Amino acid sequence: MPGHFFSFEGPEGAGKTTVITKLTAFLKEKGFDVVSTREPGGIEIAEEIRAIILNPLHTKMDGRTEALLYAAARRQHLVEKIIPALESGKIVLCDRFIDSSLAYQGFARGLGVDEVLSINQFAIDKYFPSLTVYFDLDPQIGLERIEKNQSREINRLDMESLSFHNKVRQGYLQLAERFSDRIVTIDASKSIDEVFDMTVTIVMEKISRR
Amino acid sequence: MPGHFFSFEGPEGAGKTTVITKLTAFLKEKGFDVVSTREPGGIEIAEEIRAIILNPLHTKMDGRTEALLYAAARRQHLVEKIIPALESGKIVLCDRFIDSSLAYQGFARGLGVDEVLSINQFAIDKYFPSLTVYFDLDPQIGLERIEKNQSREINRLDMESLSFHNKVRQGYLQLAERFSDRIVTIDASKSIDEVFDMTVTIVMEKISRR
Repeated sequence: MPGHFFSFEGPEGAGKTTVITKLTAFLKEKGFDVVSTREPGGIEIAEEIRAIILNPLHTKMDGRTEALLYAAARRQHLVEKIIPALESGKIVLCDRFIDSSLAYQGFARGLGVDEVLSINQFAIDKYFPSLTVYFDLDPQIGLERIEKNQSREINRLDMESLSFHNKVRQGYLQLAERFSDRIVTIDASKSIDEVFDMTVTIVMEKISRR
Repeated sequence: MPGHFFSFEGPEGAGKTTVITKLTAFLKEKGFDVVSTREPGGIEIAEEIRAIILNPLHTKMDGRTEALLYAAARRQHLVEKIIPALESGKIVLCDRFIDSSLAYQGFARGLGVDEVLSINQFAIDKYFPSLTVYFDLDPQIGLERIEKNQSREINRLDMESLSFHNKVRQGYLQLAERFSDRIVTIDASKSIDEVFDMTVTIVMEKISRR
């Protein structure tokens, strides 16, 4: 595959979106062709699947149904947007990917990391990111940052209990250990400039290695 | 689990629907509490998922996306309809279940039986049918029966090529061998009365064994 597929993970308030925006501009300036995306990424089928997941009337939605729907939306976004970009040699930066399902649903919601991994392996086949940058942050700090950031609305996940977010972090840390050849952890309690600089170093090192 | 979970598989034209209708009446007359169902079974979330699968505008739908959506709809139908019926001691007769996905998508469409099995194992967990009756029939005969049956509309699957339907049959026959402790094959080229009688014998034997 001629392109590069990088994903970015971590809690809200860790600076993911800001860093991806800056990184996109940085890489474009260096002359790279970059696609920055996040699921469902404007893919119609994936958008329709997400609408079923997020419909507040669906109070009977089972946890496994939800995990299968996320995997289905992921598959379609991958096939329609990510794979064509990679095939034409682009760098794809994806805000959240498989590890979000593993940390949030597999670990924190208790569906089982291996179980959620198995359906996602079916969904993504060989298209694992070659690099995943995990922004590690104490959820308490993340929530405080979100509250101060008036440009961003509070969403459903923000409102989960702190203990839930602590579980998600624990899940991410276990994934970083298990997939240590793919996942690089960054201390996101540092300033956004420092986090950005560390991300650039890691990403450029990965790109130059090929 | 106090109830019984039986599924019925095979091509269109093999007599599944007729036999299930007659079997439901027969079992009720014997005093059993029976639920006869088929996916998506009127379950709202499952109906919405099926609508995405069947939308003719979705020409970009990937095969794996479709398989994940079928598994998601199956999960929700199972959780909302089948499990509660089993828990209250009912006999559940389900027109098509996991083996349809394995034969049609896993085998005939080439996604891989083991791959499709893995996502469906996530979907159904421990809720495999205790008995699956497979109505085996030469697809050519099935198609001729459908064409004669004016009360039934020709659907999308009927219009697939004969070689596709032959592949589906080959898939079912392999499944019957692999899961021989669960799947019982019936020769559906016999008359509907004979097929019904054989089905009753198999089902009653299964019920009486507990």
